[in-house]
Amino acid sequence: MPTVSLHFPPPILAFDIFGTVVDWHGSIVRELAALHPQVDGNAFALAWREGYRPAMQRVMSGELGWTSIDRLHRMILDELLPRFGLDALGEDERRHLNRAWHRLDPWPDTIEGLTRLRTRYTLCTLSNGNIGLLTRMAKRAGLPWDCILSAEVFRRYKPDPGVYLGLAELFEQAPSDVTLVAAHHDDLAAARTCGLRTAYIERPLEFGPTRPKDVSPVPENTWHARDLLHLAEQLGC
Amino acid sequence: MPTVSLHFPPPILAFDIFGTVVDWHGSIVRELAALHPQVDGNAFALAWREGYRPAMQRVMSGELGWTSIDRLHRMILDELLPRFGLDALGEDERRHLNRAWHRLDPWPDTIEGLTRLRTRYTLCTLSNGNIGLLTRMAKRAGLPWDCILSAEVFRRYKPDPGVYLGLAELFEQAPSDVTLVAAHHDDLAAARTCGLRTAYIERPLEFGPTRPKDVSPVPENTWHARDLLHLAEQLGC
Repeated sequence: MPTVSLHFPPPILAFDIFGTVVDWHGSIVRELAALHPQVDGNAFALAWREGYRPAMQRVMSGELGWTSIDRLHRMILDELLPRFGLDALGEDERRHLNRAWHRLDPWPDTIEGLTRLRTRYTLCTLSNGNIGLLTRMAKRAGLPWDCILSAEVFRRYKPDPGVYLGLAELFEQAPSDVTLVAAHHDDLAAARTCGLRTAYIERPLEFGPTRPKDVSPVPENTWHARDLLHLAEQLGC
Repeated sequence: MPTVSLHFPPPILAFDIFGTVVDWHGSIVRELAALHPQVDGNAFALAWREGYRPAMQRVMSGELGWTSIDRLHRMILDELLPRFGLDALGEDERRHLNRAWHRLDPWPDTIEGLTRLRTRYTLCTLSNGNIGLLTRMAKRAGLPWDCILSAEVFRRYKPDPGVYLGLAELFEQAPSDVTLVAAHHDDLAAARTCGLRTAYIERPLEFGPTRPKDVSPVPENTWHARDLLHLAEQLGC
């Protein structure tokens, strides 16, 4: 038999996005400063994000049918605007503001870190964000994904096991051959329960400078990295 | 209000893959020549591909539950091997040969054509091939997709309207804002019925040199191009 490359295909790294790869807090603050400078951008960003889990919970409990993150973000936004004196915003302005989540900026280490990791790994998104959002974010920010995967493909939100196991199944890989990279211990813990390996990324400023995050290591994670460059270093990229 | 860029996000080009972007016939012939040089690679490639539509039809008729193209390729392969004197192939060799569809080579114009188109468009796959297959193919061949979409996401095979309309819906675009690029008039006709624009790519050697294909223009297509460079030229890229 001729020689067959055992290195193809490269193993899979699956990435959480909001907070792990992109700085949602700083980017929403930036959008608010440009569009509505009179608003407290820090408070606005935190309030918008606080609505995120309860909104997904309404989908996962069955109270709402399948609803994309774009639509959930919009529902939260519509509730939020009067609190910040922005209830006069028209439909076009609301739609534009809602798409701020498509325009999130990467952390300073993200592009170089992903580019290095991509030389030896297959890089997938594994986000609760919808495919349209993730694709537009990647296109604008230059995120070098091999594949855009989303909770939307599986019609359930992380930390539902079906998302982690669904990704492994799509690639016909054992869960232990997939590594989830995230800045959130609950996401990583759920992935571990499904048999995935896990890499924690410290993002102490995920919630902005007024609310620093505890980024202490959890020994259950396979890797613990300061940022994506540090992960690349540990993975020999 | 501050100025808002109307050019973001860039419009979507959705690409058929087998035959349009990659040369399945030449690549399967190449794989056979390397692995099993005693076999008639041309006849083998044509026979394997001939099983493709009937296999998908068994899924769409409900005779089979959802089955990925990787698995359909394998079912066809297992039936084919005895006809070509290869019934002694073991499981590992069959699995490797089946993944020849992950290792298809691009046409000579593909990489440059896509790279030019990507400067002004969002490039998605819209193939009956499964996500794992398309991702590995892209990684190996260097195909610069913004997003990998597949019939697998919609659990129905082209030319089912749900695939074309499903893509437009994921991106919250009117169907007329999406263009399907393909080398097959039936795929393009189905997309047009759903309201998409269409670009036909001539691939006269899709079935190899022994079976040249009629690549005459059909006036219903929005664009007709000799190859992807010619399409890029027509689209101002």
